Amino acid sequence: MVEKRTPIAVSEAVKRVMKYAAAGEKETVEIENACGRYLAEPLMADHDVPAFDRSPYDGFALRAEDTDGLSSSNPGRFEVIGQIGAGSVFNGTVGPNQAVRIMTGAQIPEGCNAVIMLELTKEIGSSIEIKRSLIKGENISFKGEDTQKGTVLAERGTLINAGIVALLATFGYKNVPVARKPVVGVLATGSELLDIDEPMQPGKIRNSNTYMLLGQIERAGGKPIYLGKLDDNLEECYKAVAEAMEKVDILITTGGVSVGDYDYLPAIYEKLGAEVLFNKIGMRPGSVTTVAQSNGKLLFGLSGNPSACYVGFELFVRPVLRTNLFNTRPHLRKARARLALDFSKANPFTRFVRGTLQYDEAGTLSAAPSGFDKSSAVSSLASADVLIVLPGGTRGYQEGMLVDILLLEDQNGSEWPWENIVASYK
Amino acid sequence: MVEKRTPIAVSEAVKRVMKYAAAGEKETVEIENACGRYLAEPLMADHDVPAFDRSPYDGFALRAEDTDGLSSSNPGRFEVIGQIGAGSVFNGTVGPNQAVRIMTGAQIPEGCNAVIMLELTKEIGSSIEIKRSLIKGENISFKGEDTQKGTVLAERGTLINAGIVALLATFGYKNVPVARKPVVGVLATGSELLDIDEPMQPGKIRNSNTYMLLGQIERAGGKPIYLGKLDDNLEECYKAVAEAMEKVDILITTGGVSVGDYDYLPAIYEKLGAEVLFNKIGMRPGSVTTVAQSNGKLLFGLSGNPSACYVGFELFVRPVLRTNLFNTRPHLRKARARLALDFSKANPFTRFVRGTLQYDEAGTLSAAPSGFDKSSAVSSLASADVLIVLPGGTRGYQEGMLVDILLLEDQNGSEWPWENIVASYK
Repeated sequence: MVEKRTPIAVSEAVKRVMKYAAAGEKETVEIENACGRYLAEPLMADHDVPAFDRSPYDGFALRAEDTDGLSSSNPGRFEVIGQIGAGSVFNGTVGPNQAVRIMTGAQIPEGCNAVIMLELTKEIGSSIEIKRSLIKGENISFKGEDTQKGTVLAERGTLINAGIVALLATFGYKNVPVARKPVVGVLATGSELLDIDEPMQPGKIRNSNTYMLLGQIERAGGKPIYLGKLDDNLEECYKAVAEAMEKVDILITTGGVSVGDYDYLPAIYEKLGAEVLFNKIGMRPGSVTTVAQSNGKLLFGLSGNPSACYVGFELFVRPVLRTNLFNTRPHLRKARARLALDFSKANPFTRFVRGTLQYDEAGTLSAAPSGFDKSSAVSSLASADVLIVLPGGTRGYQEGMLVDILLLEDQNGSEWPWENIVASYK
Repeated sequence: MVEKRTPIAVSEAVKRVMKYAAAGEKETVEIENACGRYLAEPLMADHDVPAFDRSPYDGFALRAEDTDGLSSSNPGRFEVIGQIGAGSVFNGTVGPNQAVRIMTGAQIPEGCNAVIMLELTKEIGSSIEIKRSLIKGENISFKGEDTQKGTVLAERGTLINAGIVALLATFGYKNVPVARKPVVGVLATGSELLDIDEPMQPGKIRNSNTYMLLGQIERAGGKPIYLGKLDDNLEECYKAVAEAMEKVDILITTGGVSVGDYDYLPAIYEKLGAEVLFNKIGMRPGSVTTVAQSNGKLLFGLSGNPSACYVGFELFVRPVLRTNLFNTRPHLRKARARLALDFSKANPFTRFVRGTLQYDEAGTLSAAPSGFDKSSAVSSLASADVLIVLPGGTRGYQEGMLVDILLLEDQNGSEWPWENIVASYK
């Protein structure tokens, strides 16, 4: 007798999983190793930037009022009373018709309120000649004009990129508080799986999901651990899963979640005393994606089919990982694009088609499938940078229609973008 | 006397740099470490995927012709003569009104040409009852339908992502030929620079460019090495640059490239006997960006201003790095977006404004500045994911205008997207 499973909507499945998503732990890394990590604290400006009024050019600092009325026919002379390189300060006050030679980035001397660029002056002995007037504040980068002290420049949970690193350095973070990477274990199940260095054999395939998942876990910000490949043997699988649960923050298994004779994950969840959150979702690929929890720890039973495994990870595992990394926009970011192809066949389940984003000349987006579109496909994953979302229902989709897409490479993330994606099972 | 420099167009500057860009070297890494690297060889399918006709479902394999005319009112019986789990093969031939129980992914037995899903059958002793007809080929994943042997699945120089890893595993690449990461040295110059763990001092700023560049180098695929921070001292700087040139594939310096009293890079290039490719570009920020070559090795003299340094890296260093990584689309990818803000002031130089991309409901893109827009700005780099390109000229740009943008996080890259970006200097 085959078990009857009732599919739930994708949004409902995400909601059930996210109940067990929680913020993780902090650690500290040196700034050289901070790129790609997630901030464990908000990044706040502890001083103004610039920290002082400074010159944006190489030139001469002077008093704007002394240049009033100057022109080519009425040039003015200024006595040069000093010189400041960047990093030096001028001790003294600049008076009427005096100037100080100043380099880019150097602090404006007391008494000065404008800078004239080097190129617009002529040196005459220890003086300069100027043929134009300046207004007060001209060519000065003012204290705090970039960033004011106390500004929150990046929220906790923000991915640290090169720009954030520049800010961390500016505010003196030699050591950066970051989220500890959650440890995500991967266990592959299936007697059909060959190790990648084994020669091909009749009826067998190489274990590709594991290595794919290691890459997806890294992209999502976790620390992947490959825990091995198992034959379809209940006792052996149970033991491996139970042991793995002790070692990891999150466990992913691939394969064994369908209703076949050797699909042992349901029996393993039962034996572990784990609560199954769902075992059927109204989505393609990945309808058999199963998630369970045991003492609050999540076990993701992803499909053994590569495309289904890939999509299951992005929809369900990624947001849990990002939440652990203190990020409050943990889901894939949604955008809208025109379909570049017909999907005329209706499907009762919501489809997540691996696609490629195209940027058009008119500033519009379109999305085309990135290759062969089946749950078992592997080739279409290589160039996929979006998932094209085709809600389940009774109608197909035509080229040119505006549809939702999920951006796989975008780093900003999103809250869960839909109130509901309903799928009706027939 | 201030040196007069003649600015060249951005496209011309890129062209001069790219004359010295060349493919780098190969090395081999284990597949677990391949993500984020670049393929050193094309990835070719050395067998069909699937490698054999297989079942996409748990069900029964049989001969479609034996189901002709079957319906609820006219069910048919099939003798179950065997069972195959994934990874096993059935030895024998299936004859008329016989069936073999088959699990997802298993090889279709000889004689069979269709599969009926488990859920649509009823077991009666050692037989099954079927109430519908199947067509030849129904529910079979055919040999080669995903990928045919000999297909090039990814070109040399492709960034290895999770999808590519899945393919590498499928085709047995336990060891993956990748591009060796080019070593990029960073030397910061400027007496105004404080180490990041030093307290603030009057007239000084913390060295933020270096750490920012380490992140940009990593994102571009290189191996960054921080070679230190130097005061504005010609002899000391010359020695450091000359020594650094021996250790790295590419050298980046920050600061010292303008026409100020302590801008020693021009003198250093001369002393090294390096050929200066240009020292003034019609762009903002980064007009002072200087590039030289010595025996074919590139020295990038980036501005000491953070935004200028950032943009200089992305436009000039990144494509050299990516070319070294065998990539033939080494430049930032161009897209088009609506301006979300007026830039009404005309600028003779082409501007690259740090911006944030917005995806609109109608499937269109818009781009807004990501913050304070000055050459010296650092805060605007944190959330920048595009550079908004505003060609130099005599007019401003208004909100809603369609403009070119360059995508900073996109991994597909591009050939140089413009025939010419002209900038006229006034």
